[in-house]
Amino acid sequence: MAYNYRDIPQIVREILAAKAEDGGVKNVYFVGCGGSLGALYPAKVFVERESLGLKTGWINSNEFVHSTPKDFGKNSVLCVACHAGNTPETVAAAKLGKESGAAVVLLTYQEESEIAAFADYLLLYSFDSSSSAHTGDMDYAGEKTQCALQLAVELVNDTEGYEHYDAFYQGVERIGGIIRKAREQVADRAKAFAQEYKNDSFLYTMGSGASWASAYMESICIFMEMQWIHSACIHTGEYFHGPFEVTDCNAGFVVQIAEGSDRELDERCLRFLKKYAKRFEVLDAKELGLSTIDPSVVDYFNHSLFNNVYPIYNAALAEARQHPLSTRRYMWKVAY
Amino acid sequence: MAYNYRDIPQIVREILAAKAEDGGVKNVYFVGCGGSLGALYPAKVFVERESLGLKTGWINSNEFVHSTPKDFGKNSVLCVACHAGNTPETVAAAKLGKESGAAVVLLTYQEESEIAAFADYLLLYSFDSSSSAHTGDMDYAGEKTQCALQLAVELVNDTEGYEHYDAFYQGVERIGGIIRKAREQVADRAKAFAQEYKNDSFLYTMGSGASWASAYMESICIFMEMQWIHSACIHTGEYFHGPFEVTDCNAGFVVQIAEGSDRELDERCLRFLKKYAKRFEVLDAKELGLSTIDPSVVDYFNHSLFNNVYPIYNAALAEARQHPLSTRRYMWKVAY
Repeated sequence: MAYNYRDIPQIVREILAAKAEDGGVKNVYFVGCGGSLGALYPAKVFVERESLGLKTGWINSNEFVHSTPKDFGKNSVLCVACHAGNTPETVAAAKLGKESGAAVVLLTYQEESEIAAFADYLLLYSFDSSSSAHTGDMDYAGEKTQCALQLAVELVNDTEGYEHYDAFYQGVERIGGIIRKAREQVADRAKAFAQEYKNDSFLYTMGSGASWASAYMESICIFMEMQWIHSACIHTGEYFHGPFEVTDCNAGFVVQIAEGSDRELDERCLRFLKKYAKRFEVLDAKELGLSTIDPSVVDYFNHSLFNNVYPIYNAALAEARQHPLSTRRYMWKVAY
Repeated sequence: MAYNYRDIPQIVREILAAKAEDGGVKNVYFVGCGGSLGALYPAKVFVERESLGLKTGWINSNEFVHSTPKDFGKNSVLCVACHAGNTPETVAAAKLGKESGAAVVLLTYQEESEIAAFADYLLLYSFDSSSSAHTGDMDYAGEKTQCALQLAVELVNDTEGYEHYDAFYQGVERIGGIIRKAREQVADRAKAFAQEYKNDSFLYTMGSGASWASAYMESICIFMEMQWIHSACIHTGEYFHGPFEVTDCNAGFVVQIAEGSDRELDERCLRFLKKYAKRFEVLDAKELGLSTIDPSVVDYFNHSLFNNVYPIYNAALAEARQHPLSTRRYMWKVAY
């Protein structure tokens, strides 16, 4: 049976009920590879920041399987993400979860797949495969990142209470409308970005806090994987402790300015770039409308906004470079 | 009063005794900026993997101050690293720790500094400022990474027991000799590396597991900060999920092959590079002598080995590029 994000409160209640006689849920691990791992990052940050009692980890599937935390087992929730359901390392992680007695929550876009056999709960997320500004029926509240985040919120709320629970779900209701508007808002600037950066051989992305991983995903999944542009993702809090020395008038940066508690870190980088760099593109969550979400929870919504605005830039970049986003030289083509 | 690494068991016993009536130690946060943050990574991974009950986090100082985890307070240990004792963001983190009632353990190279006032325990680490292969009296068992790691081991052992405690301290005894020998071992290949890569404008570093951050530090502190070479650090488990698409005969990679449970992740990348890349430098912990440390604990010693072998490469690279490691354009020169 496949679930969707509206079932998450019920799924968490079931898991907690089932685990109660075994000592309850003590930890939650978010595990995946590449973009699927990145999408789980806001959920991990949520547990890290908001929970008093739950241990958490955000770990690449292959590392998780080879170096499994000692506390992983019957008191664990394992949240794995696997888009097509057949990434071997993530299949192995889910299998390990099943065998260890963890509650395995699988986030996937594929109802029937190799990994499904190891899922206690198979959660189908919504996914927008188009990169047009007009996204039709796409339900952003049910996308991968949101599913993991809502799982984290329910776990924390049901075990120890989460004071901003209602504000959080008001955010969930609003995020889709905000994203839709933001995608239209950046359409022209995305085209200008594509013209400016189409010949760059490397590009930096920058971010922080619960939305750091949307910068990570843009770097590894788009620039490196889909455009073969060398790239690195810089944490804005780390920028001044090494990375900023490469800043000059040639290097290209894509800078996320998050809304919420980490905004000051991002703004500090932007001030520096304005002074010492010449080529940077700004994605400002406030300017893109995220501030209608309550300040107590807004941190956790930056990722969904940025991650769904990037596709507009990516489509324009691919077009300007005449390098379709589907082009690969190794993936699906050679053994590795 | 300044302590050194030999005092760590006593420091942890004191902290646990002092916290006992307040509910004990429930979490340990490793906080710093740039290289000082990187050096704390093995300790965080140790707690994440080996502890059943302690929550842990590895967080940039500025993010920690702006988005402090809710559970941070009187049941916390805050381990901050600050080389010269005056990094403003880390001073702020230590101050927050002191005010929140956490036990603040400061790792520093400076006995008297701005941050010292906020430390419950000021731990002076050993530090090798030379980059020659002959390191004289340097006590590697007392370096920054080792101090944090030993703090983590003592915390876990004293609260819930650590079955490989004796093996771990045998490793501590051996690591210095292994590093010394390895530094001599790479002297010639470091010079060859410097000649091969001296004109590269972009270099990747790669690593995984508890030693991922030695690759991170090499990327941000050496290539970016000290050599102004664009750079990114790729997790070897993530490589096949995006980053590998940039692999070609021109890109340069420095690949750590760790000893221990994550070795297979690193070796898989190396096999791929051997097939599809032409320019990569390998740092193999096994070949560099780390295997004399017990397999149950060897994972946690890769970082110290790699991090202390890199300086030989770095000195050669700086020499070949006629770009001294102390050259900066922004750090210490402009306001930021």
